[in-house]
Amino acid sequence: MKPIVLMTDFGLEDPFVGIMKGVIARISPDARILDLTHAVRAQDVAGGAFALFRSAPYFPKGSIFCAVVDPGVGSARRALAIQTRDYLFVGPDNGLLWPAAAENGVDACVSLTNSDYFLERPSATFHGRDMFAPVSAHLAQGTAIRDLGPQIHDPVRFTFPVPEEGEGRIRLTVLDTDIFGNLTLNIGVEDFMRRCPKGFSLRYKTHVIDCRFSAYAQAPENRPFVLAGSSGFMEVAVKNGSARARLGAEPGEKFVLVPL
Amino acid sequence: MKPIVLMTDFGLEDPFVGIMKGVIARISPDARILDLTHAVRAQDVAGGAFALFRSAPYFPKGSIFCAVVDPGVGSARRALAIQTRDYLFVGPDNGLLWPAAAENGVDACVSLTNSDYFLERPSATFHGRDMFAPVSAHLAQGTAIRDLGPQIHDPVRFTFPVPEEGEGRIRLTVLDTDIFGNLTLNIGVEDFMRRCPKGFSLRYKTHVIDCRFSAYAQAPENRPFVLAGSSGFMEVAVKNGSARARLGAEPGEKFVLVPL
Amino acid sequence: MKPIVLMTDFGLEDPFVGIMKGVIARISPDARILDLTHAVRAQDVAGGAFALFRSAPYFPKGSIFCAVVDPGVGSARRALAIQTRDYLFVGPDNGLLWPAAAENGVDACVSLTNSDYFLERPSATFHGRDMFAPVSAHLAQGTAIRDLGPQIHDPVRFTFPVPEEGEGRIRLTVLDTDIFGNLTLNIGVEDFMRRCPKGFSLRYKTHVIDCRFSAYAQAPENRPFVLAGSSGFMEVAVKNGSARARLGAEPGEKFVLVPL
Repeated sequence: MKPIVLMTDFGLEDPFVGIMKGVIARISPDARILDLTHAVRAQDVAGGAFALFRSAPYFPKGSIFCAVVDPGVGSARRALAIQTRDYLFVGPDNGLLWPAAAENGVDACVSLTNSDYFLERPSATFHGRDMFAPVSAHLAQGTAIRDLGPQIHDPVRFTFPVPEEGEGRIRLTVLDTDIFGNLTLNIGVEDFMRRCPKGFSLRYKTHVIDCRFSAYAQAPENRPFVLAGSSGFMEVAVKNGSARARLGAEPGEKFVLVPL
Repeated sequence: MKPIVLMTDFGLEDPFVGIMKGVIARISPDARILDLTHAVRAQDVAGGAFALFRSAPYFPKGSIFCAVVDPGVGSARRALAIQTRDYLFVGPDNGLLWPAAAENGVDACVSLTNSDYFLERPSATFHGRDMFAPVSAHLAQGTAIRDLGPQIHDPVRFTFPVPEEGEGRIRLTVLDTDIFGNLTLNIGVEDFMRRCPKGFSLRYKTHVIDCRFSAYAQAPENRPFVLAGSSGFMEVAVKNGSARARLGAEPGEKFVLVPL
Repeated sequence: MKPIVLMTDFGLEDPFVGIMKGVIARISPDARILDLTHAVRAQDVAGGAFALFRSAPYFPKGSIFCAVVDPGVGSARRALAIQTRDYLFVGPDNGLLWPAAAENGVDACVSLTNSDYFLERPSATFHGRDMFAPVSAHLAQGTAIRDLGPQIHDPVRFTFPVPEEGEGRIRLTVLDTDIFGNLTLNIGVEDFMRRCPKGFSLRYKTHVIDCRFSAYAQAPENRPFVLAGSSGFMEVAVKNGSARARLGAEPGEKFVLVPL
């Protein structure tokens, strides 16, 4: 049976994620549940979208991603199920699902309006339990996406920022950070290599980074460098340290890349 | 196969929960293991009891709840298995299991004394591994509860505080808080609506809260309000903030509700 | 199906562990995945080795342990699969796997060089995803360890420090600590009892500990004591408190035991 993959910003301190698993197990007793992460920063739709985007391709075909980062819960924001070439995505219509779904190729997108597939009397505050978990479980049981509600053609289309071209320089944006303090930039590894065949200067405030290593183990201590990140994007890192803390940079902030 | 649902205050920093899963998998290779939460505050029996109480009804019939918040481990406190209408509960006899079990309807309660179902030479400090995990796994394998030890009729009966009636005012107690800083009060949603049809004033120290919203998204920023919580009890919340931090209130503390 | 047991220092804040589960599920759709812990301190090979050592014996025969604490990722350090009497261990060749494997009895050890069992184009920074997860999944599917690479006879053999004998005193080392602040010493319970039949004095800096209790519940508050830890080693603990904070001691530091 194909897995249901959960991603939320609920944390693991409270029983919220556990309750979602209970709801899934009631509807789909044999569904396999895998946790992607539940530590998306609270209400950080862009951060959650990036985590889902970089992770989804590693899961089996047929996986059902149930993702909840949902500052608009209880408002008029729609709820979605998206069928893509290989996957199903379930979650709020706020862009969270879009980059991962679009990358895989969207076949159909429906608004979740058929309350036959929700828990009875859904709350206004916990759609993860009352709507997204049960819909995901019904999909695992074979419910067709078209039974969940009407097809829509205007989902919220969130996209990551792209490199901004200037005269001999490129403005890059920090897409993500991780527990080690690595900073993921919005430039793909191949793109970087093509643009900087002879070296580069990467600037952030008063910092200048000009060396690249192929692995953390090869870098000197205590000096920021770039490397090809495992997400397919370039990363800024400090060996045995935190580039985020060292540079004081956060997701959303800008670096300037000057190819030599 | 019905799931074994784990709840502890062990955290996920150490291998304790993982070891319990190993013990279960050795005895019951096909048992499905679901985590409710492992971040109950250390030795907070009341907090764990509330988490289990609010969560259990969402799990499939036949689920086996293995819950360990156990400040008395190694003392003379008994260990229990409780059969209820839909579930089995396994854990220490300190009230942790009682609210969830009583809500579902207790059929039988046994003291875990038959060491055939424990690991050999159980430790005095880790009954989660040596007693509660193996007993839960044996129950999943079909062991009858009566084989685990003698039936008892005096388990520790912990109950949550109820609203305290006064003259035109009701003293309420904070039952729980969560990672977002919401505060759950010990008054059910329907009870609150019945008592306060024309509005209310809710007081804590110098704070006065007098508005209710049906979802976080509808509230103004930075101003405490009440809403119907997903647990079935009323909550105090601050949109995009923490009511707990804003008011300085903790579980166990009192609010005063004055219906208009 | 025998479980794949994961242990890493990746934390659960990022999707790294979730991605490893996706990779496993793609290759071995029915493999059961159990988490041991993902909170090994960053790059703490000795701490991870102890967690694995104390936990492995509780898992079913046939379990495949996929362990990643890997400061040398991307360097020339080898990657291993070790067949022991009851288990398979997969991870970096830095000593992480050795104590648990040696305790169980090593049958064969191979260097993971056959890239047929890796993801295509493995990264230099995330071998958990690109090498250790897929190799573990292929082992679960029945791949023979000899197909993964050449047998080697010189794996990194990490061993825990042993008690250092002196004149009437024994120098002990802190092997581990846990979330509760208990300190695990490198002396087994039976060894301690044999050496100290009439009592003892255990010294750390200016602190002297001279009492032993059989359970936390039996100790007085606020006073460090020793007890038989659930790992099989003696522990220093403070009831409802942290021995680590109270004494200011950390893994690797020395205590002096004087039997009476």
